[in-house]
Order: sequence, then C-alpha cells, then structure tokens
Amino acid sequence: MSDSKFVSLDDTLQRHIPPEELREVKRILYGREDDHPLTFSEEATSLAKEVGVELKGYVFTARKEDLRRPRIVRVGLIQNSVDIPTTAPIHVQRDALHEKVSNILRVASAAGVNVICFQEAWTMPFAFCTREKFPWCEFAEDAESGPTTKLMKELAKQYNMVIISPILERDPNHNDTLWNTAVVISNNGNYMGKHRKNHIPRVGDFNESTYYYESDTGHPVFETQFGRIAINICYGRHHPQNWMMFGLNGAEIVFNPSATIGALSEPLWSIEARNAAIANSYFTVAINRVGTEVFPNEFTSANGQPAHKDFGPFYGSSYVAAPDGSRTPSLSRDKDGLLVAEMDLNLCRQVKDFWGFPMTQRLPLYAESLAKVVRSDYKPQLVREN
Amino acid sequence: MSDSKFVSLDDTLQRHIPPEELREVKRILYGREDDHPLTFSEEATSLAKEVGVELKGYVFTARKEDLRRPRIVRVGLIQNSVDIPTTAPIHVQRDALHEKVSNILRVASAAGVNVICFQEAWTMPFAFCTREKFPWCEFAEDAESGPTTKLMKELAKQYNMVIISPILERDPNHNDTLWNTAVVISNNGNYMGKHRKNHIPRVGDFNESTYYYESDTGHPVFETQFGRIAINICYGRHHPQNWMMFGLNGAEIVFNPSATIGALSEPLWSIEARNAAIANSYFTVAINRVGTEVFPNEFTSANGQPAHKDFGPFYGSSYVAAPDGSRTPSLSRDKDGLLVAEMDLNLCRQVKDFWGFPMTQRLPLYAESLAKVVRSDYKPQLVREN
Repeated sequence: MSDSKFVSLDDTLQRHIPPEELREVKRILYGREDDHPLTFSEEATSLAKEVGVELKGYVFTARKEDLRRPRIVRVGLIQNSVDIPTTAPIHVQRDALHEKVSNILRVASAAGVNVICFQEAWTMPFAFCTREKFPWCEFAEDAESGPTTKLMKELAKQYNMVIISPILERDPNHNDTLWNTAVVISNNGNYMGKHRKNHIPRVGDFNESTYYYESDTGHPVFETQFGRIAINICYGRHHPQNWMMFGLNGAEIVFNPSATIGALSEPLWSIEARNAAIANSYFTVAINRVGTEVFPNEFTSANGQPAHKDFGPFYGSSYVAAPDGSRTPSLSRDKDGLLVAEMDLNLCRQVKDFWGFPMTQRLPLYAESLAKVVRSDYKPQLVREN
Repeated sequence: MSDSKFVSLDDTLQRHIPPEELREVKRILYGREDDHPLTFSEEATSLAKEVGVELKGYVFTARKEDLRRPRIVRVGLIQNSVDIPTTAPIHVQRDALHEKVSNILRVASAAGVNVICFQEAWTMPFAFCTREKFPWCEFAEDAESGPTTKLMKELAKQYNMVIISPILERDPNHNDTLWNTAVVISNNGNYMGKHRKNHIPRVGDFNESTYYYESDTGHPVFETQFGRIAINICYGRHHPQNWMMFGLNGAEIVFNPSATIGALSEPLWSIEARNAAIANSYFTVAINRVGTEVFPNEFTSANGQPAHKDFGPFYGSSYVAAPDGSRTPSLSRDKDGLLVAEMDLNLCRQVKDFWGFPMTQRLPLYAESLAKVVRSDYKPQLVREN
C-alpha cells in the first residue's frame, strides 16, 4: 500500500495521526478512544485466512447490574462481493453465493457468533439498475421453502446461530408477487418469519419500485434466544420513523442490510444507522456489499451520463453502532469481510434510563400531529409577519 | 500550538493528513472534498478581529433551474462564552451578554448575514445544573416585550436581519410560568412569534424539567423574507420526529440552539443535526456554547462524583449541514465564533425530488402505527418461535 493512497477513512487516520491525538479523534468520531478489539481463537483466525475473509471484532460493554445478569451476545455481519459473472446461469450464480457465504458462516461459527445477517438480496447481483425483468426475476424464491431458506435452516441448526437472510422473495400464495424480504431463521433451524422492505427507492440506479412494492409486514421484532432483533432493509435507513417503530416494538438490535454506492450515499452511511442507534437506544448493524457488478446489457443511470454496464463499486464499510452513540470502525471498502460485535444487551435499557428518550418522546403529540398531516386538507403551521 | 496537542477534529485532520488524502477524508466525513470557503470583505474580517470573534464562512450551491431563480441567503450562527462571573448582579450579567452579542451582530451585518441565531438561553449562564431557583429565575423575561426582545428588534431593523433569540421566557399571561423559548424577530424589527422547547432533558447536569415544561407551541415554521425557518431547541435534536414535524410544516432551515458538554454528547453532536438535514431535505444549524461556567454554590452531577462548582467546558463545534448530507467544518471547541453559511434554498426541493424521501415516507402508515402505540393496551409486534 502506497503511503499516500487513500484506502479508507480508518486506514488514513491510523497511518497519519499520532496515537495520542488519534484517541481524541476516535472519541469524537466513534464515541470511544479505543476500538475495544475482540480477540478470536487461533481456529477462527486461520479459518478466516483459509476462506479469504477479513475478520474483525469489537466489544461493547455495559455496567454490571444487581437484578439482571449480563446478556452478552455476539452479532455478526457479512459483506461480500459477487464474483461469478452475471452472464452465468441463474442457478450457478446463486449456488456460488451459497457456497461463498456458507464458507464465511464456518468462520462466524468459529468466532462464536450467535446472530448473523447478510447483505441485502445476497443471493444475486444487485441487478435492479438494469430495469430488465429477465432473467433477474428468476432469483426470487419462496421465503419459507426456497432453496436459500432450506440451506440456511440447516446451517442455523448446525451452528446454533440465528440467521437473517435477505433475499428477493416470490410469494406464490399472492399471485406470484415479488418482495424484497429478510427471512429470519432461529438457532434451532426453524423459520421464524419474515420482514419485507418498508421503503422502496426510486433514485439513480436504484429502480427498485420497478420490481416490488412497499412492505405489508409492519415492523416486526423477532424474539430470539439471543435478543430481540429487527431488520430495516436498505433505503428504510433514510426514514427515522421506520427505525423508531422497530424500537417501539422492543428491538435491541436492528440490522440494516443494504446495497449502496459511493457517489450516491457514502457520506450519509456513517450518519444514519448510528443516529438510529442513538435515537432509539438500541444497537444497529449497517451492512453494505463490496465489488463492482458488471451486467450483460448497457443501462443508463438517470444522470445525463452515457450508458454503461456497471455503476461503480459498492463501498462496503459495514459497521455496528451502540445505543450510547459509540461505534466500531468500518470493515474495508473493497474486501469480503466478517465483522463480529460482542455486546451486552443490558446497555439498551441502561441508555434508556440514562438519556430518557422514551420518557421524553411525546408520542401522543406526534400521533396527533401525523393524523392531521396525512389529511388532504392539512395546512402547515406557518407563521407570517403581520 | 504544540504539534501533538489535540485542539479539534478539523485541526488534527488538517495538520496531519496529506492534501490528496484529506480530500477523500472530507468527502466521506463532510460530504464534499473541499470546504467551499466564503470570502468576506476587509471590513468584516477586520471588524471580527476588533470584536474578538472567530469568523468562518462556507458556501452551499444548488443547480440552476429554469423556472425559479436561485434563492441565496446568508445564515449566521453565534457561539459564545459567558465571561462575567455568575456572582454579578443579574442585570449586569445580562447586559454584558447583550453587549457581547450586539458586537458580534455588527460583524454579522458586515458579513452580509440575513438570518442569525444565537445559542440556547443566550442571555444567561446555563445555571440549570444547580437546581437552584434563585437567583437564576430572574433571567426570565417576556418573549414579546422583555429587554432582550426590545434590543433585538432594534438591531434586527438596523441590520435588516432576521434574529432568532433563544431566551428563558416568563409568561405573565399564564401565571408567571417559565419556558425555554426561541423568539423570532423579522428583518423589519417586528416580533413574529416564538417557539418553546418541545423536549426537556432530565439527564446529568441538565435538570431542566426542574424549571420548565414541554412546549405548547407545536412545530411552527416562520415564513421570513429569507426563507422558511424553524427552531428545534437543544435536547429536541435527539428526537427525529421533532425534526420531522418542522419539515412537514415546510421548514427550509432548522436551527438547533444548544448548550451541551463533552462527556455527555460530543460524539453525538456531529450525527444528529446532520441526520435531520438528510432525513428532512432541509438545512440544519447546530449551535453550542463555549467556555466553562462557574457557579457560586457547589452542586452534584448525579454521576457519583463529589460536588463541584462547574461541570466542565461546553465544546462549541457549531456547524451547518445541508439537505444533500454535506456539512461545514465546525467552529472551534473553545472560542467565540460566528459561522456564516451562504446557501441556495433551492437545494431543499431539488434534494426532495432527487432522493424522494417525502414521496416514500409512508406517513399514513406511521400515523396509524403511532395511534396504536400510544394506547395503554398496545401490544408490540413481537414474533416468537413456535
């Protein structure tokens, strides 16, 4: 690595800023002076090397309580590229991703992960930029009984791990509709349920409203053996009220499986999931993919530029944020990675007690205000000079 | 300044990171590679020196439109310390702050500022840490006709500047109640109205619920000659739905006059107002005070530490964030400062059109959800394993 080449924010800070100042920078940027790295077993680190995945881990602690024991869980996230050409047969592409992620799951198991989440639509390239229906719709599968869920049920049971598997869903019980869906599988290998993406983008290369509609699944929170978890899929991270409802339903960890690129959103990436962790006193897990996906036919990006076959790299940079506003460094911007965060879930209620956001939230005011806003005859509260 | 001493994040980045890498760091951290500094007249810069205030300026542009002219305004914020001892008579303390801020307003006028906002409760030390009622309640004054509003009406007219003046309010028409209030004065020197703090903290040294209650003024947006503005006072920045309602009422710029200290909130400071700018497609102006305020009698901070007469420095770091997620660097952590942001308000609607957050916000879903949540028999949407 050249000394003057930008690779990532963390790398640049680490290389150039003297240790003492770096502690203050990290306190302000990441909410703690030290990264609190998690140490893994020799088995986990050598397996990570073998599989070819960057393994990083960090610890979040909480104060000891008298009446509750610590509730320590290890949460994992996987960011990865799609290596096989998008021209390969659909089943070949899907099986290659199954294999890659299954290998990383072995590392996660060795690293003691209890709950893991993959990136959005992880079994396929993010082909919605093309606006083509075929062959991409073939990636859709049944949430409860499709090949991906079948495989993940086996692995969840084998590894005693809760798996959140975000896929393109086909619902055969409702006229073959497509959905952008996260499937939740318990550590016993049982299908627990699913959540569908609440907010669908129509921006730049993210033409997803061409393929599927806004969710009809509300804001479910899944009560797993390792804590209460929820999923805010991708573009839903831009909507604070989406994050809020998962909190009001009791979530302690909210995953944000995403697929997003640099020019569009990189400066927002470190802000939104972290703000959600602060505002809702829960942990958030922000997951993006890496790599550049090249499609067979050219497409345009609605930005005045000529047609092309790819829209540039996904920037990875996945991270975990805590309810006290602290966060981990990011995974790389370009490499497959497994991030493991060990967290004491007791921190959520402790932060609620300390900051008092639930108490001071004034939900009745906002319930009343929103009920007025949605009326077609709503008049904004404007004050004019007399 | 020693070469290894931490003064601020911006200073450390500037001193240690090579220019080319710094551009990438700034792109990721601040949403743009270059700060886009604003150049001031010789008059403004020499006046700033004379007055003893750090003057910084930045520009936010928007694309040219065919049907609308650019709507360029200069927005100012003032962060300042309270220099006079808190043992001085109340009127002496207040008059000293009147004088200091009036002097900075001269600089703002020379810098072409159209709309300006001061820090929270700017006419007084932030004495709520003491939990003493006397003599601090004496700082409260009538929002419409108190001495501060009188003075600011004169200056607003003189400088053709909209002034947002956050004070401790006494309401004589409602049984002498106290409020934490922002008064809005038009550039014609007229009282336009007021907004009272919507969310009141009960955390650490911020015992404000001891003094005043949650607002009864809703989420007003003031339609000034220089754009539609609103005020989210201090702790209200932790509540995304508070920010949201100002946006739904049409705000283009939302000011967040604050008083907050390092140990409590410094890592959150750069996140919350900026997230609000992104989520609501408007500009936000985050204002904190500087300096350490020492009180006559000792008090405790509810953190197990011994009693003391101050709770450490306010960290300043005021900044402006834009609807596209970009932001200015911060003012210093310890010096009086005037930050001026020149912005084209057309950017707000352009960002709404581009990202589509208003369209994809699903307000009816949240109106319905919140109406259920506030019922005492609400059952969270929990999914359990069968």
